[in-house]
Amino acid sequence: MSQPRFDVIAIGNAIVDVMAPCEDALIEQLEMAKGGMTLIDTPRAHALYEAMGPAREISGGSAANTLAGVAALGGHCAFIGQVAEDQLGEVFAHDIRAAGVAFVTPARGKDLSTARCLIFVTPDGQRTMNTYLGASQYLPAAALDETLIADAAVLYLEGYLWDPEEPRLAMRKAIAAARGAGRKVAFSLSDAFVIARYGDDFRSLIAAGDIDLLFANADELAALTGLDDFDAGIAQLAPQVPVLVVTRGASGAVAIAGGERAEVPAAPVVRVIDTTGAGDLFAAGFLFGHVRGKGLGECLKLGAACAGEIISHYGARPEADLRELVKG
Amino acid sequence: MSQPRFDVIAIGNAIVDVMAPCEDALIEQLEMAKGGMTLIDTPRAHALYEAMGPAREISGGSAANTLAGVAALGGHCAFIGQVAEDQLGEVFAHDIRAAGVAFVTPARGKDLSTARCLIFVTPDGQRTMNTYLGASQYLPAAALDETLIADAAVLYLEGYLWDPEEPRLAMRKAIAAARGAGRKVAFSLSDAFVIARYGDDFRSLIAAGDIDLLFANADELAALTGLDDFDAGIAQLAPQVPVLVVTRGASGAVAIAGGERAEVPAAPVVRVIDTTGAGDLFAAGFLFGHVRGKGLGECLKLGAACAGEIISHYGARPEADLRELVKG
Repeated sequence: MSQPRFDVIAIGNAIVDVMAPCEDALIEQLEMAKGGMTLIDTPRAHALYEAMGPAREISGGSAANTLAGVAALGGHCAFIGQVAEDQLGEVFAHDIRAAGVAFVTPARGKDLSTARCLIFVTPDGQRTMNTYLGASQYLPAAALDETLIADAAVLYLEGYLWDPEEPRLAMRKAIAAARGAGRKVAFSLSDAFVIARYGDDFRSLIAAGDIDLLFANADELAALTGLDDFDAGIAQLAPQVPVLVVTRGASGAVAIAGGERAEVPAAPVVRVIDTTGAGDLFAAGFLFGHVRGKGLGECLKLGAACAGEIISHYGARPEADLRELVKG
Repeated sequence: MSQPRFDVIAIGNAIVDVMAPCEDALIEQLEMAKGGMTLIDTPRAHALYEAMGPAREISGGSAANTLAGVAALGGHCAFIGQVAEDQLGEVFAHDIRAAGVAFVTPARGKDLSTARCLIFVTPDGQRTMNTYLGASQYLPAAALDETLIADAAVLYLEGYLWDPEEPRLAMRKAIAAARGAGRKVAFSLSDAFVIARYGDDFRSLIAAGDIDLLFANADELAALTGLDDFDAGIAQLAPQVPVLVVTRGASGAVAIAGGERAEVPAAPVVRVIDTTGAGDLFAAGFLFGHVRGKGLGECLKLGAACAGEIISHYGARPEADLRELVKG
């Protein structure tokens, strides 16, 4: 097995975030599920945008955010995701390439627009996400470059993208390509709603030994295991995957690998501005440490540092020099 | 003369800013004029975007920023400017309406895209702007609603928009409409390069008594008067306009009206992050004070407070509650 060209290749939604602050009253008035991610159609997207205050646009997408973090730490990354031939597609492609990530998936035309996520950020820093998937949900399996996947140490998959059919097939094909090349597969469970719909798929992948690193938060752990108790969930799931990483928001994170367990507190942050991307950037730090052969505790520390940076400002793409930040 | 419905109506470029931090070396490498505004064509826009780091998109446009500030202070405003039927046009229209500004100019189709300004922000907070005007330069005189203009206490014009021919004609028509209705005309000189090309037009407007409030910075004052000495420039220009406001960056600002002269220091700012929009928001505070009948010193203080808010974060649209900020 040759030395891979990339540290991490990821398949994920190609989304531009449209972000604005709002009061809690607006979340209630618009009947949004605070703190969650909801898929929305065009009429709902228009209604929510109409109700949103002056906004800013910043590239997003869960796995894409993770790669921007890995690249900022010095890792070599490639991204597979579907944009449309439109201005937001150009914005997404520019930003991920400018972050140092290889991105070669061709844009898909103009019939559907590039995905956008309307994110309402409340004064407590919590983000409530409403995603119009547009072009992103039509990533075709045919667009996968299996040579590229075989050329990355880790294939990282975003659970959100398991929902639409075409990308799900593409991801199954990608898993086979990575396994065939002797590479590792990392999977982020993304959101409890995805598990509610596709938990059986995920449990099958885990049972088949197709997932080497599993990322979840406490809610997703409970949804996947059916166990509300955190430690009981960990005890059930940990023996089934080589590396399990579970984040707990302000309570830090836990990782279990080969019987070893490590914990990390959340990084101290002067003020939580916007939690969008906290899990994505935690995964970035952990993955970077993992591909660089760091111990479990060190991987967790890298994750916590990156998550701490991202919640201290608006947007899910790093602004500080992460390499500098994690030194010392 | 009836009580006007709007405090300020403005005609300006309808621009979305594309902003990214950069080192001074990149400014030199790309041969940009640091601190200035340069009009760019499509190939140059592509080359600069290619060289730019991961960015964020925030609505901009000089007069549009000023209106967003006036509206945030509690003023009633309307904006006239040209976007295209594209995603950035939707972003611009959304953001200015969400700021509480009436915006009714119809989008112009898809042949040219909505204007964007590539802004490189150096570590000293200085912004270097490169504007692709696209649709914005084709604001037709026919799009002007003269009833709307007659219904605002002040017509505010952005010098930048004097450069392209169609908006220049529209602005001349707007000045006539405002004067005919007994309203005031305020004009921002915008940039020394505009004065280099159209200084004679501006001097004629001033000589004809068509400008009631003139906004300039020190460079623009020098370009318009041909006098490098600040006080000599003020002494020459002040007697020609009812109200003259000249900003001097970190040195504050000066206003002269009817023989009265007032000064204000720059508002204290913990750290200057991005000076984009400093002049625009200074004008916002001053104009709001003026239409509310405040004294010259109070108008300057409002200007300084708004400018101080805008340079403390990325982007030229206010983030803090300006009404709260200027209390007390």
